[in-house]
Amino acid sequence: MINGIITPMVTPLLSDNVSLDVKHTKNLIEHIISGGVHGLFILGTTGEATNLSYKTRAKLIIETCKIVNNRIPVFVGITDTSIEESIALAAISKEAGAAAVVAAPPYYYGLGQIELFKYYWSLADQVALPLFLYNMPSHTKTNIEIETTLKLAEHSNIIGLKDSSANIVYFQKLVYLLKNKNFSLLVGPEEVTSQTVLMGGNGGVNGGSNMFPKLYVALYNATIAKDFQRIEELQDLVMEISTKIYSLGSFGSSYLKGMKGGLAALGIIDANIAPPFQSFEEKEMNAVRKNIEHIKSKLDKVL
Amino acid sequence: MINGIITPMVTPLLSDNVSLDVKHTKNLIEHIISGGVHGLFILGTTGEATNLSYKTRAKLIIETCKIVNNRIPVFVGITDTSIEESIALAAISKEAGAAAVVAAPPYYYGLGQIELFKYYWSLADQVALPLFLYNMPSHTKTNIEIETTLKLAEHSNIIGLKDSSANIVYFQKLVYLLKNKNFSLLVGPEEVTSQTVLMGGNGGVNGGSNMFPKLYVALYNATIAKDFQRIEELQDLVMEISTKIYSLGSFGSSYLKGMKGGLAALGIIDANIAPPFQSFEEKEMNAVRKNIEHIKSKLDKVL
Amino acid sequence: MINGIITPMVTPLLSDNVSLDVKHTKNLIEHIISGGVHGLFILGTTGEATNLSYKTRAKLIIETCKIVNNRIPVFVGITDTSIEESIALAAISKEAGAAAVVAAPPYYYGLGQIELFKYYWSLADQVALPLFLYNMPSHTKTNIEIETTLKLAEHSNIIGLKDSSANIVYFQKLVYLLKNKNFSLLVGPEEVTSQTVLMGGNGGVNGGSNMFPKLYVALYNATIAKDFQRIEELQDLVMEISTKIYSLGSFGSSYLKGMKGGLAALGIIDANIAPPFQSFEEKEMNAVRKNIEHIKSKLDKVL
Amino acid sequence: MINGIITPMVTPLLSDNVSLDVKHTKNLIEHIISGGVHGLFILGTTGEATNLSYKTRAKLIIETCKIVNNRIPVFVGITDTSIEESIALAAISKEAGAAAVVAAPPYYYGLGQIELFKYYWSLADQVALPLFLYNMPSHTKTNIEIETTLKLAEHSNIIGLKDSSANIVYFQKLVYLLKNKNFSLLVGPEEVTSQTVLMGGNGGVNGGSNMFPKLYVALYNATIAKDFQRIEELQDLVMEISTKIYSLGSFGSSYLKGMKGGLAALGIIDANIAPPFQSFEEKEMNAVRKNIEHIKSKLDKVL
Repeated sequence: MINGIITPMVTPLLSDNVSLDVKHTKNLIEHIISGGVHGLFILGTTGEATNLSYKTRAKLIIETCKIVNNRIPVFVGITDTSIEESIALAAISKEAGAAAVVAAPPYYYGLGQIELFKYYWSLADQVALPLFLYNMPSHTKTNIEIETTLKLAEHSNIIGLKDSSANIVYFQKLVYLLKNKNFSLLVGPEEVTSQTVLMGGNGGVNGGSNMFPKLYVALYNATIAKDFQRIEELQDLVMEISTKIYSLGSFGSSYLKGMKGGLAALGIIDANIAPPFQSFEEKEMNAVRKNIEHIKSKLDKVL
Repeated sequence: MINGIITPMVTPLLSDNVSLDVKHTKNLIEHIISGGVHGLFILGTTGEATNLSYKTRAKLIIETCKIVNNRIPVFVGITDTSIEESIALAAISKEAGAAAVVAAPPYYYGLGQIELFKYYWSLADQVALPLFLYNMPSHTKTNIEIETTLKLAEHSNIIGLKDSSANIVYFQKLVYLLKNKNFSLLVGPEEVTSQTVLMGGNGGVNGGSNMFPKLYVALYNATIAKDFQRIEELQDLVMEISTKIYSLGSFGSSYLKGMKGGLAALGIIDANIAPPFQSFEEKEMNAVRKNIEHIKSKLDKVL
Repeated sequence: MINGIITPMVTPLLSDNVSLDVKHTKNLIEHIISGGVHGLFILGTTGEATNLSYKTRAKLIIETCKIVNNRIPVFVGITDTSIEESIALAAISKEAGAAAVVAAPPYYYGLGQIELFKYYWSLADQVALPLFLYNMPSHTKTNIEIETTLKLAEHSNIIGLKDSSANIVYFQKLVYLLKNKNFSLLVGPEEVTSQTVLMGGNGGVNGGSNMFPKLYVALYNATIAKDFQRIEELQDLVMEISTKIYSLGSFGSSYLKGMKGGLAALGIIDANIAPPFQSFEEKEMNAVRKNIEHIKSKLDKVL
Repeated sequence: MINGIITPMVTPLLSDNVSLDVKHTKNLIEHIISGGVHGLFILGTTGEATNLSYKTRAKLIIETCKIVNNRIPVFVGITDTSIEESIALAAISKEAGAAAVVAAPPYYYGLGQIELFKYYWSLADQVALPLFLYNMPSHTKTNIEIETTLKLAEHSNIIGLKDSSANIVYFQKLVYLLKNKNFSLLVGPEEVTSQTVLMGGNGGVNGGSNMFPKLYVALYNATIAKDFQRIEELQDLVMEISTKIYSLGSFGSSYLKGMKGGLAALGIIDANIAPPFQSFEEKEMNAVRKNIEHIKSKLDKVL
């Protein structure tokens, strides 16, 4: 069972916006691990996986596993529209020493639920690492319906689901229907990690833990301890990050741009972002810097 | 400030499927009030408001206020595409003794946020009762964006928002941004009332409290008391209702049909439903009866 | 069989934005009839039907039928979420002398196709005038699927369908599957009336014929005559109206605001618009006036 | 300027469902060319491009160009979420002798229009072959708005747009606004090719021309000749294919499955389909065979 805070790692890029920045990747990983998170998830939505070439994806897998060196489990996103490419990424992950792979539904054609079920079952059969489902309907167009998840949970190689739908009714139904099933249920949006853990969820795959890993770990621990005064104090900081860092600039990519901008403001990586996106302009970067400063000074007081 | 469990009352209909069934309305109201809920909300989505004629809506407002007789506050849905009709319903509500009115965005044309803001501000100016916003984007097509809500919360006659989007990230942002503002934030989906109250929400407008008002009140009380053993016990029952009563039959209207079917199985009202919907067929009704029986026997043990 | 150009009439309003402006309604109807259109459709989407009170809707039906005085057939929109209100509007229409009624699907709850079929069949049974289906999925959320339309076309009182989906593949399938069935198929968007008539459609319900009825009639006639030089000349004017009058200001309501603004610029009605919308501000009105001027001078040369 | 019928070629696969079937690819290409089409488009939506590995995509490009051997122009889909992979596919296409490349928007993240514009401009700068835009909002989530297309049409290396939105109002606006601009506008859906060509479009990228290339070419020719008797005769056959081959089985993938099933019934390729899809079961295949038989016998009479 996977529990706790998993960091969906951003992918540090060189100034050509497409090549892996290995030096800053090392920086970032050390920063994250030092914050006490329970796992690292590379090549997810926050990791811009689909926007990277396969060469870059492979390099990131290998470098990350080398740097982490088994200190925490590494989860690798193998989401792809081609099952052959997903399987190839899984093989690289296995070879590199990753703990598990994570796959959202193929995202070009919309799928019927039966098609989706057959796809996942077949994928789980063909990868040598345990498989996490990843529900992300806003991006993939295909929701992994409750019934489909229940059937897939029967596969011995499918060990959990990360839900980034932000539909907590959906999540809560899964928590109820999969109780005592040895199946991990993690939420994407960091704004609701605490409450879903209070209600039986296993943890969060929270982007903000790239910047402030200690905060999300502390909030998780306070939640497990049911220390509500501490929860409120930390949740407010999580909400400040959410409303002041992720919503600058144009909608859609503002989360990604804010996250990389925030990490650049903290001096951990450069803010380069892969096409089709472009980094924040100076105006937004100034806002990010100012807000990060403010959040950091608050954080230093409570952590 | 409105806190607690508000019942979004179903509208009991005679066998012509369009006329108000006053006798069973009385039954239902007494049943709900005896369960200890904190308020009654008529003419909402669960109340099939838009499917009823204006004559029937007016009659329901008057009869309900008479039956309730100020024992608990009555909230009246005035959601309409015509502002004149909304204002007329508000006037009837005021006259009848209702406590507040509730309005979702006009739902035929999609609205821009500026149009939406101007609409709500003008409506709040023109109704004599306090106004609750009602976010229901799946039905109205127009989301009440965070920024719009913050600006509307400045109007002295706008006192809260009911969110039925099921997007708890949205709800949690409102809780954070409107903290200490004397603005009630209630959630629609009963599956997440407990967790949103734990994180600062004010309560739930929960359809299931038509059938089992004591359950939802007990869960709310356990949540306020942070009695997690009790929360888990009761939340499981809420989830059983959610997964076994609301998801029979065809998608979309299954919630409404299940709810009225459940109330009929309990002998509280007849299952008649207004066009464009049709009541469950015998097959689904049998499933409802069986599941209600099972839930009721469990409930009797814990309440 | 209904063929040709039907004008979906805007509803002239007084400066309170909610009351019918009878004087300008007369102006507008005479203007439209003098342009030679084949029918008048009131209380459609262009007519802001859902935003008007029932009193105003009833008044418009009665006044319009009186003014038209059987010179051309009058079609009345009875689209509503309450079937009782739809039936009441149909009775008023019958009494006033209208030729047929038009109904889009109920638009608050999304409907399954079986629910939709049963709804329409029952409605057709209960109205004394012939019924036109109206497909408008962007506003009603429910598409009238091909299969459903084919089954409904069997009802002796359902005489046609107006399609405003802009999905011409859908429309073309209906043309093919309902060939020789005595069932009228009209398109909403004026940009594609000519081409759909060339391929077997029966005509257009074209908003622009409020402003320039002669243009749309001339284009229809040229299309019937397969006079391609004339078609191109007139189609260019239709496209100029589409791109220069309907796309100013904010998306969604820009069509309505541009249409009423254009009619005001032509001196036919005032630009008042019902809530939740607001009329164009001066800046957009100036653009409308300038563009209308330009189009009018071109039109004067070719008509 | 590209005019006429372009075949969006399906990708023949071996029974492993992932490897290119070179033998049947040759069959299919000869069949298509013998039908007189004006161009061949590989690796589009009909070609299951996103579901194939990069190795298979590269192989298909090289084999196709070799087989075609410049008899007709070859267009290659380079749609991808990674710009590096798109550029790599363009380089292979150039080397192999293709005429142009075609790209839909990146399809994992939704893009803002400014982001989309910058992405396409940059892509057009970096590929050595002329670039066709490909609007496919149902699959990519991002519509290429009118304004964006107009600005992109200024790039000397962007030569046209294929629109598969089925929104013919959108298409007709582009035809009007890009008149005399040396910019090709082609539609995807074969049901509307004739009418869009009548109104100024340049042709169709019609999947059915995999099966019956002569039919679509004959319809195009009849359209250019404005031979309306012939158009009606042939359009009816196109509609019969549309309604009897593409709509069997489950929604979404039924088009692809029907197309490959139809080609198998004609003995041109095997029906193997790449994951995440699965070929039709025997029941649907029998329906396909029967319908193809019927269509073929009709076709033999008119062509």
